[in-house]
Amino acid sequence: MKLAMIGLGKMGYNLTLNLIDNKHEVVAFDVERENVAKSEQHGAIPAYSIEEAIGKLETPKVIWMMVPAGEITESVLTEISRFVGEGDIIIDGGNSNYKDTLKRAAALAEKGVHYLDVGTSGGMDGARNGACTMVGGNEAAFRHVEEIFKDICVENGYLYAGKSGSGHFLKMVHNGVEYGMMQSIAEGFDILDKSDFDFDYEKVARVWNNGSVVRSWLMELTENAFSKDANLEAIKGVMHSSGEGKWTVETALDLQAAAPVITMALMMRYRSLETDTFSGKVVAALRNEFGGHAVEKN
Amino acid sequence: MKLAMIGLGKMGYNLTLNLIDNKHEVVAFDVERENVAKSEQHGAIPAYSIEEAIGKLETPKVIWMMVPAGEITESVLTEISRFVGEGDIIIDGGNSNYKDTLKRAAALAEKGVHYLDVGTSGGMDGARNGACTMVGGNEAAFRHVEEIFKDICVENGYLYAGKSGSGHFLKMVHNGVEYGMMQSIAEGFDILDKSDFDFDYEKVARVWNNGSVVRSWLMELTENAFSKDANLEAIKGVMHSSGEGKWTVETALDLQAAAPVITMALMMRYRSLETDTFSGKVVAALRNEFGGHAVEKN
Repeated sequence: MKLAMIGLGKMGYNLTLNLIDNKHEVVAFDVERENVAKSEQHGAIPAYSIEEAIGKLETPKVIWMMVPAGEITESVLTEISRFVGEGDIIIDGGNSNYKDTLKRAAALAEKGVHYLDVGTSGGMDGARNGACTMVGGNEAAFRHVEEIFKDICVENGYLYAGKSGSGHFLKMVHNGVEYGMMQSIAEGFDILDKSDFDFDYEKVARVWNNGSVVRSWLMELTENAFSKDANLEAIKGVMHSSGEGKWTVETALDLQAAAPVITMALMMRYRSLETDTFSGKVVAALRNEFGGHAVEKN
Repeated sequence: MKLAMIGLGKMGYNLTLNLIDNKHEVVAFDVERENVAKSEQHGAIPAYSIEEAIGKLETPKVIWMMVPAGEITESVLTEISRFVGEGDIIIDGGNSNYKDTLKRAAALAEKGVHYLDVGTSGGMDGARNGACTMVGGNEAAFRHVEEIFKDICVENGYLYAGKSGSGHFLKMVHNGVEYGMMQSIAEGFDILDKSDFDFDYEKVARVWNNGSVVRSWLMELTENAFSKDANLEAIKGVMHSSGEGKWTVETALDLQAAAPVITMALMMRYRSLETDTFSGKVVAALRNEFGGHAVEKN
């Protein structure tokens, strides 16, 4: 199948190579000309504007958008929209908020354009060698491009999840689950670290990866991290986040779903961003007020 | 190697068959005579008392105790202790609290008896076909019996974790991590269930098991559970626990380790044991007191 890849960052570039390996024709565009050139070397058809990329496609046009969620997705989609019409298919493979997806899909549907929302998991390596994708949107449009997903994903690694928004919703919740799993693993190692036993964390992660109940890809990554730095001394325990955990918690609030573990995992990320906290000052001051307990001075 | 297996329940029986498959000689004892007979049919040497079982061993005697933690372990160990001496090795493969293990190991060390604490993971299937074990205690004693662990575990599935108590400590924290991971997975599906999308949970778990970041044995078990009952309608959401999660939280408290996710996972298990709560009544009553908000009557 011939399609355009709009966005050749870490994910889009690897997906492009994966698609080419699988005999698809990819028209590759990125704002960075060198990314286009690099893709061309691997067999992509180069394009230096969105208009040019879409102009090289046949009807129904299939355009895979792989750019950061939010404003960039919005502006790229506005540009793409100028060059598509009835029956064309736009795939949003980024981590867009499913509420934005619902609005975009409805707006495009008025022009007869199909908008497929695709949650993509597995990281760069997955994009290159076999991803995991969850797809929402019009089912006929999905069936038209299904071969793409079959080819670029690992076996059983793609799912038509249902109506518009369901792909991004599923990816969002996947990331929420990931937050909780990661924090749970992390707390376990923290308890080991504070104990008076002398554990080799790489070996602990390795034995937990072989036959135990907690064996998982995240535990394999844990083993890998400890193999490079036995006590993680080179890195700070600052845990950034990129939005999907927050959206999962916001969604849980909207749905009145009790999700304390995912929520707490998110809160612990926020806590990690501060070396001291205002809430800590307040509690210390109150203990001093009512009980004369000593405070630590700044 | 010749050893005695004391306790032929689900775990001990499967370990016995696993040991026999691997050419070890197992003297098998259980309070239930039929469990002994069943083990004999598979090649075990039968014994109908602990004294008889230990009497059939050569020095240094190796005795694997696979009985429930707590009082039963305590009384079985008292009985075993009568028939062992200098250089003999007792393996506690159950989920004993590591603090009990420390006391038992110290008491037995006075008689020159080695006490190895073994955390065992992987469930019945693991016990039968390849377990995951974490071993604490005297290192020379461990090396003497290491071949057993090499044979009954999956590849890279056993670890000499260090001094006495470290095996049971590691297994305890493993189970704590498991609580957090399970609750996180569960909350994710709860959010999916409360959304207005129409997900097929078996298919969701399957796609998450193929190439995604959250792929794990627990997610495979989730897929399996949904394959048998698409919406888990046949079971109640009552989450029992068997102690190791509680011990992990108690240990976190003792060590002043912030482990809110593992703690919350445990608390959610306790919450699930009640259909109504006294705390809920208190909050409802207070909202009524200060704001006149309606309460739901019993």
